[in-house]
Amino acid sequence: MGQRDCPFCRVDLEEVIIDNDLVFARFDRFPVSRGHLLIISKRHFADYFEASREEKMAILEVIDQAKRFLHNRFHPDGYNIGVNIGEAAGQTVMHLHVHVIPRYTGDVPDPRGGIRGVIAGRQHSGNLVNDQGEA
Amino acid sequence: MGQRDCPFCRVDLEEVIIDNDLVFARFDRFPVSRGHLLIISKRHFADYFEASREEKMAILEVIDQAKRFLHNRFHPDGYNIGVNIGEAAGQTVMHLHVHVIPRYTGDVPDPRGGIRGVIAGRQHSGNLVNDQGEA
Repeated sequence: MGQRDCPFCRVDLEEVIIDNDLVFARFDRFPVSRGHLLIISKRHFADYFEASREEKMAILEVIDQAKRFLHNRFHPDGYNIGVNIGEAAGQTVMHLHVHVIPRYTGDVPDPRGGIRGVIAGRQHSGNLVNDQGEA
Repeated sequence: MGQRDCPFCRVDLEEVIIDNDLVFARFDRFPVSRGHLLIISKRHFADYFEASREEKMAILEVIDQAKRFLHNRFHPDGYNIGVNIGEAAGQTVMHLHVHVIPRYTGDVPDPRGGIRGVIAGRQHSGNLVNDQGEA
């Protein structure tokens, strides 16, 4: 099922942190924070919406395991969990992967908005004009 | 189960786009893109990791329904899906909600990195120094 030239189809077993039949987790090679993990499908396909029900459930399970691992190892203060679907959404490796990004108080000057930051410059929209921002 | 002063415990039924026993979806009131949706638990609690198995499965289901709704209504080119857990991660409303953010080709000058943008300024880390960036 591997795909030549796909960086997620080549697995260095030493890197694998969590593993089940359908997905595995390893550290991101360009981490944006200490402990930044990727949960990667074993099957090669790009789009989260093409994942089977079983693959989605396996991802949910590994998210929980990743949180326990990261909590014990790095004691972060928060987490962002997310997936980019399609080039327009910033996906650059066309093999399904979910980011688990541990966050630490003070790691950015103003964390508010979190995931909203996918649209650079809109991360604080709402929050800054109105305390009812919905981040 | 509602909590006074929680904006997600007050539901305007006219706003509800998708609904099941455990979660519902409505548009974000401070959208970062056209069609930006929130999937909100009916039970009031802050932390994704406190969600029950049933609540997590309900979220997965509504993510799929939201995608079909958004695809038909707005024809986006991609999606970011993500959740902020804790203040350090940018969560500002302490009631579980998952962002579904439709993306459109050209909506930002350089979308690469997507979810990595939670750490402002690191969105393109890796991608820009090496084509093997893992967004």
